[in-house]
Amino acid sequence: MGRKPAKVKVIPLGGLNEIGKNMTAIEYKDEILIIDCGLSFPEDEMLGIDIVIPDISYVLKNKDRIQGIVLTHGHEDHIGALPYVLKKLNVPVYGTRLTLGLVDHKLKEHKMTDVHLQRVNFGDIVSLGAFNVEFIRTSHSIPDSCAIAIHTSLGVIFHTGDFKIDYTPINDQMIDLHKIAELGQKGVLLMLADSTNVERPGTTMSERNVGITFENVFRNSNSRIIVATFASNVHRIQQIVDAAFKFNRKIVISGRSMVNVISVAQELGAIDIPDGMLIDINDMDRYNDNEIVLITTGSQGEPMAALSRMASADHRKLEIRPGDKVVISATPIPGNEKSVTRVINQLFEKGADVIYESLAEVHVSGHACQEELKLMHRLVKPQYFMPVHGEFRHLKQHGKLAEDLGMSKENIFTMQNGSVLELSKDGARIAGSVPAGRILVDGLGVGDVGNIVLRDRKHLSEDGLMVVVVTINRENGKIAAGPDIISRGFVYVRESEDLIDEAKQVVKTALIQCEQQNIREWAALKNTIRDSLKNFLYEKTKRRPMILPVIMEV
Amino acid sequence: MGRKPAKVKVIPLGGLNEIGKNMTAIEYKDEILIIDCGLSFPEDEMLGIDIVIPDISYVLKNKDRIQGIVLTHGHEDHIGALPYVLKKLNVPVYGTRLTLGLVDHKLKEHKMTDVHLQRVNFGDIVSLGAFNVEFIRTSHSIPDSCAIAIHTSLGVIFHTGDFKIDYTPINDQMIDLHKIAELGQKGVLLMLADSTNVERPGTTMSERNVGITFENVFRNSNSRIIVATFASNVHRIQQIVDAAFKFNRKIVISGRSMVNVISVAQELGAIDIPDGMLIDINDMDRYNDNEIVLITTGSQGEPMAALSRMASADHRKLEIRPGDKVVISATPIPGNEKSVTRVINQLFEKGADVIYESLAEVHVSGHACQEELKLMHRLVKPQYFMPVHGEFRHLKQHGKLAEDLGMSKENIFTMQNGSVLELSKDGARIAGSVPAGRILVDGLGVGDVGNIVLRDRKHLSEDGLMVVVVTINRENGKIAAGPDIISRGFVYVRESEDLIDEAKQVVKTALIQCEQQNIREWAALKNTIRDSLKNFLYEKTKRRPMILPVIMEV
Repeated sequence: MGRKPAKVKVIPLGGLNEIGKNMTAIEYKDEILIIDCGLSFPEDEMLGIDIVIPDISYVLKNKDRIQGIVLTHGHEDHIGALPYVLKKLNVPVYGTRLTLGLVDHKLKEHKMTDVHLQRVNFGDIVSLGAFNVEFIRTSHSIPDSCAIAIHTSLGVIFHTGDFKIDYTPINDQMIDLHKIAELGQKGVLLMLADSTNVERPGTTMSERNVGITFENVFRNSNSRIIVATFASNVHRIQQIVDAAFKFNRKIVISGRSMVNVISVAQELGAIDIPDGMLIDINDMDRYNDNEIVLITTGSQGEPMAALSRMASADHRKLEIRPGDKVVISATPIPGNEKSVTRVINQLFEKGADVIYESLAEVHVSGHACQEELKLMHRLVKPQYFMPVHGEFRHLKQHGKLAEDLGMSKENIFTMQNGSVLELSKDGARIAGSVPAGRILVDGLGVGDVGNIVLRDRKHLSEDGLMVVVVTINRENGKIAAGPDIISRGFVYVRESEDLIDEAKQVVKTALIQCEQQNIREWAALKNTIRDSLKNFLYEKTKRRPMILPVIMEV
Repeated sequence: MGRKPAKVKVIPLGGLNEIGKNMTAIEYKDEILIIDCGLSFPEDEMLGIDIVIPDISYVLKNKDRIQGIVLTHGHEDHIGALPYVLKKLNVPVYGTRLTLGLVDHKLKEHKMTDVHLQRVNFGDIVSLGAFNVEFIRTSHSIPDSCAIAIHTSLGVIFHTGDFKIDYTPINDQMIDLHKIAELGQKGVLLMLADSTNVERPGTTMSERNVGITFENVFRNSNSRIIVATFASNVHRIQQIVDAAFKFNRKIVISGRSMVNVISVAQELGAIDIPDGMLIDINDMDRYNDNEIVLITTGSQGEPMAALSRMASADHRKLEIRPGDKVVISATPIPGNEKSVTRVINQLFEKGADVIYESLAEVHVSGHACQEELKLMHRLVKPQYFMPVHGEFRHLKQHGKLAEDLGMSKENIFTMQNGSVLELSKDGARIAGSVPAGRILVDGLGVGDVGNIVLRDRKHLSEDGLMVVVVTINRENGKIAAGPDIISRGFVYVRESEDLIDEAKQVVKTALIQCEQQNIREWAALKNTIRDSLKNFLYEKTKRRPMILPVIMEV
């Protein structure tokens, strides 16, 4: 490769113009490093889809050049696509303690045991081919989160990861502002920074504030306390444990991911639960109500999660009783508002006393607000800036924030997934693009559901379907059996027998006309059935079910 | 009916444990009065449903006793079910100026011209059979809103309607606190009061605040201004008009409901637009950008509304241009957050400068917060209280608020739709219940879509369907044609030909086994097809499409 002038390419493959599936490729000296490998959850219109992962065709095309994947933290939107990507790409994965603990657990669930996971410590500088990668401690809503500095001959690429600036973090381990200041002082070529909360003025509250609320709730309660939160928010769980300890309550854990994360965090020492405090849900009834705290999943109103099951009286081990104190220690992620609301109402109906964000300080964000972002920009003083981790409006406003701090507009790159930012001695420029998009995962299928399938699902979901079957005599083109009609999701068939009978007659008449005109071609017959029925049904019902004509020949 | 002791029954038929389809029946001396007749919008799981209306079977059973319907204001959740209900119930409808103007328009759209609409003025007391009904001016996000006092020999039933307390209302017509105080002083038996904002401390800001924001936006802009808001928020529209007038801009109106409401409001004098200010959207290009304000629907991100069409470059008359200033003067109604977000992002992508609630005071609520509710309770001092217009948690907390003000718990009735509150000289009690629920409207069908149809739509939406058709020889039970398989919404058929071929083989094998075992019954054959295919597909794809076996006989 020799004497080509040094270039660094930065290619976001996910995480731009969306909150989710974060993944960025960095190219330098013909080698590629990947930062994060996340999933996103399906949009409303992606009916039946389980998860969404980045399109990695560019990465796969350059398989041999990939040096590894480095992870900023253990949230699903940063690690969730790993099982799918690592099946096609055998490269080592680098991350801190809890991050790799969660990845390890996830890969085992996918029965993948041969991935090379390399644990790093804060402050480590790891050589990955031509890249020197430094892991720098930050604060976020999951422990062991980090920013990443990639040292190249052209300069430093600094990726904040997801961060906030918490001056009183739970584990007393502050975001490493000194290291970040030092990098800034020496000179950073490009910063990629979290844009999630750029619309919020001021600063994000410290995680510790939630602890104070917990203490007040625990102090004033004689009933069972049930706290729902994100399983990955280990600091939050630590604070629940601390409050429980202070007020002599035992801890019960409910929900699969809560059990998993706490066990991983315990093994790794990322959470501290005094001996004897954890009890099995089956032993709960041996204790008084005021001796119990239950920590559960379901803070987003997910229908299958433990809290939702309790709320709808569908939990095998726990029934909500009047007087139970339920704390929902989370904010609804956009799109989940109504599910959360439903769970809150159901809990109230069962007589529980529910505490949620509108009523008390039971949650704080894990992302930096405007003043924290400004501090980051001022410390890092990058030459170029790429806002990441946000919808278009967030990236746009993060760009504005940088401008307000004095950065010149042409040094700010508000990009699309797949766009290539090329840095060289001559400056920075957009240099074309690579494929980037979304791959839908549905059950075992990765990428086998696309727009046509989704369009059909939407159509079916709105007005259902009508299958029309007719058997035609091969010899004379006459109807041998049928037409029969089966409908689903359209109307109550029992109350609409007349409508269905009329529909059969409409089809029959249309087919007889075809026969008289000697139309025998199946495609034409099917169109005739579809059109005649469509018009008939729309006139009668103002609905447009999917019509599936089936012709059999005997 | 003679000498039975006087009783008043209050029966909420909608609006409790939900925000929507408000409707309350009041019974007195064997006569019935109905307050409001609203619709609600479908929940996420009501796939394909257009609107939801209250179950009025109780009202229809008592048709002859109904004296009329009185309306508190012209929002859809208070008047939207009228076309459906009035088709089955021919009674007069009473309301104030704009309320009836909107009802009149709505009924004409449904081609209903023979309904008796009786306009009332604030302060009027109307005799409706044994009821004396008083209409009292309030403040809300639509003009001509009122509270209703029903005078009976037992005492006054006071219904606040939807209200806020705005000390600086746009039309200078204050909520009639004096009348409310007077009623309270004389004694109110029961109050029903709006609970929407009971979780919010403090007071709702005055509508006038939004006007100040508009003035600032207009003053500082040289580009086109596009303001999206609720069509029914006539005061808001008045303020846009006032700001436009002040800064010499013409008004263009876009969106069907916006055009309708403004024309009704203009006819009735509920909005004041100076002559010559309104121009046609087709004439817009004759003016400079800084001479135009466009008022549009779509503030909720509704996909078919004008603003959404502009954002997705799908509007026939208007294209968003870089620099356009777009103000979204509304808050997303729960459930609409993601649609609104999508529109905001699309507008930013087109280069517009978008101002929305996170960024400026471009919206205020129309409902009373805690301090306003307290004032209402203190003025009315009712003997009994029924919180209405809220989800369970709102009703519950409104009850608590009343308790905090000194009301005794047993005088507060947090009820269900259909529960009957009976008031007599002996006090108040729950006296049984009447049918109440929801009727789904889908196209022309009212009530013909229920749980089974919805369950099928959900099933279809998640994994699609597979139709299996086989023709069987009547004589010998052998396969005469097929099995053929058609799938929709399941997988890309082209990329899954092998899977479909294997599926056919699975069905064939299963049918041959049936034939060998001499199983000829259709139900059994269909079950065999369904089970064999279900297992096969789940194993291969972890999906469960709906399987529709069709057997034809020749």
